Amino acid sequence: MSRDWGSLFDVDADPADLLEHFDTEWFRGRRYRHLSDERHGIERGTALVGDAVVRGYPSMPRALVLEPAVRETFEGPVAIEEKLNGYNVRVARIDGDLLAFTRSGFVCPYTTRKVEALLDAEAFFDDHPEHMLCGELVGPENPYTDHDYSEVEEVGFYVFGIRHRESGTPMGVERRLDRCETYGLDSVDHYGTYTPAAAVDVARERIDDLNARDREGVVLKSTDGKTALKYTTSAIHRADLEHAFELPFDYGRDFVFTRVIREAFQAVERGESPATIRERAQELGEAILQPAVETIRAVDRGDPVGETHTVRGDPKTIADLLSYFRDQGLELHIERDETDGNQRVVTFTKVAQSTRDKTRYYLEGGTIDE
Amino acid sequence: MSRDWGSLFDVDADPADLLEHFDTEWFRGRRYRHLSDERHGIERGTALVGDAVVRGYPSMPRALVLEPAVRETFEGPVAIEEKLNGYNVRVARIDGDLLAFTRSGFVCPYTTRKVEALLDAEAFFDDHPEHMLCGELVGPENPYTDHDYSEVEEVGFYVFGIRHRESGTPMGVERRLDRCETYGLDSVDHYGTYTPAAAVDVARERIDDLNARDREGVVLKSTDGKTALKYTTSAIHRADLEHAFELPFDYGRDFVFTRVIREAFQAVERGESPATIRERAQELGEAILQPAVETIRAVDRGDPVGETHTVRGDPKTIADLLSYFRDQGLELHIERDETDGNQRVVTFTKVAQSTRDKTRYYLEGGTIDE
Repeated sequence: MSRDWGSLFDVDADPADLLEHFDTEWFRGRRYRHLSDERHGIERGTALVGDAVVRGYPSMPRALVLEPAVRETFEGPVAIEEKLNGYNVRVARIDGDLLAFTRSGFVCPYTTRKVEALLDAEAFFDDHPEHMLCGELVGPENPYTDHDYSEVEEVGFYVFGIRHRESGTPMGVERRLDRCETYGLDSVDHYGTYTPAAAVDVARERIDDLNARDREGVVLKSTDGKTALKYTTSAIHRADLEHAFELPFDYGRDFVFTRVIREAFQAVERGESPATIRERAQELGEAILQPAVETIRAVDRGDPVGETHTVRGDPKTIADLLSYFRDQGLELHIERDETDGNQRVVTFTKVAQSTRDKTRYYLEGGTIDE
Repeated sequence: MSRDWGSLFDVDADPADLLEHFDTEWFRGRRYRHLSDERHGIERGTALVGDAVVRGYPSMPRALVLEPAVRETFEGPVAIEEKLNGYNVRVARIDGDLLAFTRSGFVCPYTTRKVEALLDAEAFFDDHPEHMLCGELVGPENPYTDHDYSEVEEVGFYVFGIRHRESGTPMGVERRLDRCETYGLDSVDHYGTYTPAAAVDVARERIDDLNARDREGVVLKSTDGKTALKYTTSAIHRADLEHAFELPFDYGRDFVFTRVIREAFQAVERGESPATIRERAQELGEAILQPAVETIRAVDRGDPVGETHTVRGDPKTIADLLSYFRDQGLELHIERDETDGNQRVVTFTKVAQSTRDKTRYYLEGGTIDE
């Protein structure tokens, strides 16, 4: 590792200081480093594989009130695309190997294998060796998130960005869409490019439609791909809350306030009537309380509580993935473990220890000082 | 200040170290110190007035599931009393003066004046000079909290504890009730003393009744007054949330998770049906979202947002109180300022700066990284 990392990342820090913030991991016998949290202005998820740099995907600002946020954020044309609810993956080809990086810069063996199977990206990387594909991995069979999309049977990868791997500079929207088409890569849905004022109206219509179909939301982008803004549906706010309050002591505290705030500003921007707000409020309450009650009852019965996922792949990949989670300190509860042809299909629960232990403590008469 | 504070508080710390955690304040030309946060195991709210010590009122554990918590907490008879929704005040007589300490140990000039007017406690303190009265100050006219109790027209002080001022040791429940009766002091409602098993049933019945009347909850106590447990109604959880989400960016984040958890465990302990849980959930959602929407709309209209209180008293006391709040950095918006006989009656709003500023920021198109 002989490169001048300080000047590459355009930071003043001593290279050794910089590198000590990176975690070291191994993938298929190869050592690499990744940055789990933003440091010195370098994006979270930035990874160093040998001399190759894979820049993290930047966090995207969120609008709470769409119209003024679009007006303040964009000066020129605005492209609108669907925001999918999966997990953010960057795919790069380094020394001939396709590698899939999760948001934190971890090279996920399961995702890498899925991407190898899903993507025919050799032609793209032959022509664009210095670029990476940024996309959403979605579908029911993945070890991180679960959201059903009717069009995705097992797993799908939808490109929403193509960036220079080392600098992170995005390709413009039109060119990126063209590259996806040329190389046969799936893209997220693109709803067209509009003036900022028109973009607000189109985004609102799309949000209504996506909300009705229980999908997540939209991303608005400047045509050079450099400026982006996300805005989400009430359906995803409720889905997030349901998910969080299934494991209240693991996720509830962080999730609930932000989602309530999104709902409140959305109701105000839409100028909703008292009756509509009441209905929105009631649905919000149901999304919060009902899963929490179900989970407390499950703990009371002694059932395992946690996030349940199904993964499918060659036995080695599945074994590696499960070991990786266990090495991270996760307690796994295997619900089903089957063989389908030459593939192993495992349904497992990442046991939510905090929710299980705290719930049990209160059910047994534990008290709280608040 | 020549006393050996370390040995008095039974801590190892150097007296100078101990004292530096205390804030210095003045009341009617007299300097005193108080501890705003627990330190070295000394209760928050402990105050030093000259050589006199006024121990803080200890924080009280809360049951989330009543039956097991009562079983785990109590071995002998359990007294049940009403928990009122006002603010915790300790009244002590020091060098002949009645002083009223708020939870943090601040000698509140307004509360002191109210207590002087309300309480005829001279006989009590003549006979018990080393004790203090611990009670709840309730009623619509106070500068801290507002909860309407039909029996309280302006302000009331209800004793729930009598403690040794320096050691904090509580008087037993029966004796305390007897002292209140003897000296004509109002007490919180006492519902009797029971075996732990019977106490659970009585507390549940009382909670149902208090909930139906929108009151806060119960406190269960060992007869020596040393062990206590609180448990609250769904009505107060919702009222807390309504209050918090009127000022979401000031209080919402801290309040919402804890109240949701209380509701969830209460629903489980009561074995509620899906329909009842759904109703509880809907009411919870309404308590959260509706006030947040109202506040965003108020900020949008340019109306002041914050907690509104009415105070009544002699002009000097009212002026002192308002200066005290302003000195603390609070921005006050005076809604009404009238004279009623020789009393000044002021209705003011403690402007919720965080809610106002953040709401305005988002309404003007500000974005958020999450």
